[in-house]
Amino acid sequence: MSQAAELKFDAHGLIPAVIQDAETREVLMMAYMNQHSLAETLRTGKTHFWSRSRGKLWLKGETSGHVQEVVSIHKNCYSDCLLIKVRQVGATCHMGYTSCFFRERTGDGKWQITAERVFDPAEVYGEQ
Amino acid sequence: MSQAAELKFDAHGLIPAVIQDAETREVLMMAYMNQHSLAETLRTGKTHFWSRSRGKLWLKGETSGHVQEVVSIHKNCYSDCLLIKVRQVGATCHMGYTSCFFRERTGDGKWQITAERVFDPAEVYGEQ
Repeated sequence: MSQAAELKFDAHGLIPAVIQDAETREVLMMAYMNQHSLAETLRTGKTHFWSRSRGKLWLKGETSGHVQEVVSIHKNCYSDCLLIKVRQVGATCHMGYTSCFFRERTGDGKWQITAERVFDPAEVYGEQ
Repeated sequence: MSQAAELKFDAHGLIPAVIQDAETREVLMMAYMNQHSLAETLRTGKTHFWSRSRGKLWLKGETSGHVQEVVSIHKNCYSDCLLIKVRQVGATCHMGYTSCFFRERTGDGKWQITAERVFDPAEVYGEQ
């Protein structure tokens, strides 16, 4: 894979990928890719990641149907981070929010939810 | 530090921080923070990171003057990634671009520069 040769994967074979809504420009999530998940992303046009907790390839939306269609792929100056602009089907966060970054730090050091839930996780994922 | 207790730092004591322009919503860079750099960011209102290559605390803009004034701090659902919205003084990338993500992948697998340089690195950083 020529594109991988020009990217710097870390000691675990991973590269962080920031996912941004191509239209609204909202930052949706950050996850890790290895060479295989990047290849699958390129082949299918849908984002795939490497789940560090489950130790497996992960098609974003495989359970929820909330896939991300790739619009463009960018890399940073050091070639050690990706920025992928997507069209998000449904919503990104498994907790029911448009973006995983739905908590904001308050002046007194607490974390406050500053977004509205757009779906009910129990309905989309079933009881877990 | 109460805010750190609610964040998940990795085995190296680091947490990735995605930096976004609060106004234009452009994703500017991704870098890592440890507890100390996060504390300095909170104390000063300017982003500080941990430089893995130099092994030291790093005030973004310490050489260039291109500091980032913190507008808001967000965390993701797993509390293992930060999103920091900033007002960027000057430009983010040490290579002279507004964002570090100035290269885009082309259909034939090459990386193309898709942004314009906004400053000359040699002028800002001197000969290196």
